[in-house]
Amino acid sequence: MRDFSADTSALSLNTATLGHNLDGHGAGWPIERVIDACAKHGFGGITFWRREIRDRAIEIGDRVRAAGMEVTGLCRTPYLVGSELPTNWQDEAKASIDMTADLGAPVLTIVTGGTEPGTKGVLETQKILADRVSRITDYAAARDVLLALEPLNPMFGGNRTCIMTVRDALSVCTMVGADNLGVAVDVYHVWWDSDLRASCAEAGDKIFGYHLCDWLENTGDMLLDRGMMGDGVADLNGIRSFVEGAGYSGFCEVEIFSAGNWWRQNPEDVLKVIVERFKEHC
Amino acid sequence: MRDFSADTSALSLNTATLGHNLDGHGAGWPIERVIDACAKHGFGGITFWRREIRDRAIEIGDRVRAAGMEVTGLCRTPYLVGSELPTNWQDEAKASIDMTADLGAPVLTIVTGGTEPGTKGVLETQKILADRVSRITDYAAARDVLLALEPLNPMFGGNRTCIMTVRDALSVCTMVGADNLGVAVDVYHVWWDSDLRASCAEAGDKIFGYHLCDWLENTGDMLLDRGMMGDGVADLNGIRSFVEGAGYSGFCEVEIFSAGNWWRQNPEDVLKVIVERFKEHC
Repeated sequence: MRDFSADTSALSLNTATLGHNLDGHGAGWPIERVIDACAKHGFGGITFWRREIRDRAIEIGDRVRAAGMEVTGLCRTPYLVGSELPTNWQDEAKASIDMTADLGAPVLTIVTGGTEPGTKGVLETQKILADRVSRITDYAAARDVLLALEPLNPMFGGNRTCIMTVRDALSVCTMVGADNLGVAVDVYHVWWDSDLRASCAEAGDKIFGYHLCDWLENTGDMLLDRGMMGDGVADLNGIRSFVEGAGYSGFCEVEIFSAGNWWRQNPEDVLKVIVERFKEHC
Repeated sequence: MRDFSADTSALSLNTATLGHNLDGHGAGWPIERVIDACAKHGFGGITFWRREIRDRAIEIGDRVRAAGMEVTGLCRTPYLVGSELPTNWQDEAKASIDMTADLGAPVLTIVTGGTEPGTKGVLETQKILADRVSRITDYAAARDVLLALEPLNPMFGGNRTCIMTVRDALSVCTMVGADNLGVAVDVYHVWWDSDLRASCAEAGDKIFGYHLCDWLENTGDMLLDRGMMGDGVADLNGIRSFVEGAGYSGFCEVEIFSAGNWWRQNPEDVLKVIVERFKEHC
């Protein structure tokens, strides 16, 4: 393991961790204040969500870099499969690619959407997903954007995802066969997978992102009760060693949806705790 | 696929499907009425829970057989790992083995419990589980009881299970190396697994149980919102073909926890729908 004890430059904040400061979650900080606070606490980067950016991508990207950090990614494309597929999914996907490029971010995350209507299970939907992803990879490549398929915990099968493991994501990558399509490894979604060491090794340089949080022993809400690193049962050192052992050298992006706990706290305190826990547990 | 269209003798009811008739769930039917109704609707067997049986195992087993059915299994051992491990787990495990034998049932289900205190992830806990299971396999063999490790959906990691897939369960079986230790395949827990065909084939005659329900596209409650067969997105025909292709020829046990829907309905209607759906979708 690399020794990051004195170095938090690999640390990135996914703004979901502060409740997006939207929708009545979080402290309501304007995005400029989030950027300044991250810089102050020694973060190396920030990942945003589309709804926070709207038409300010270029301005916000410049602002992050002026603060000495990088924009590490953007969440996310629309669903590409499942019954909640937007009719204009292709336009929305291209708009999210454009926003990623305008931010100067390297990676756009794909959450796939659920089982395609008229099908059962996940395998048929994975094929349909591969077909649809293949229609946007060239557009992304032209704008220098990597696309990262994010496997979600199987509890999100049905309506949110058709890929549950790194191996599922790799299977779709193989079907598509595009250099700029890879995988985002999120602790919350894959901590339980006994196959993780082997599938990360197989992924190699296809790992485009690494997302950090912890899985609480008693998770109260499947969507909005993620734990802070060190408070749960995920083997954070092990998972990071799998990801970095495969060749990943990018950011560790902290993404904690926590409506009942961290979203209620002062963002300054949350950022301070993240830095401490990152040094101690990750 | 075998043609079961006119034959429901492979169908077994897990009494959880009627809300156990306990704890304020279900219609409050006495166990004799459940037995008679299952026989009337053409079920071939029933699987019970320990708290329904108490000291009446021999009597209830005889009653089921007198009604022309079999007792197909018992739920379940105490947790064998995790922070909710009972101090008397070994006595409780043996009591559940005795109850299975007294009922004349072939199989006792093991839900493992979660991550062992002081460890992270699942692999270390799986080793501890193997050690503890190995302390009860001889006792079970002496009473002619098969032990079935049931993988649970990864959303139950942390506090309920340390095995998430058929492959995880097989890994523990290999560590233990006992002929009477195998796997229970439950649609709710494994429907999402792209590796299911291969892992069932590898399991072969280690598949000791097959549990039926469906995964609703929009699952409202992770514990108590299971779907009736045909109402969800699980590939029921595919999964049954994996299980039976591996050599399994036992019962299809319907186990639907559904506090908001099926537990509120008249058990006669629920049993009728199960039979219809079994013929049509399973």
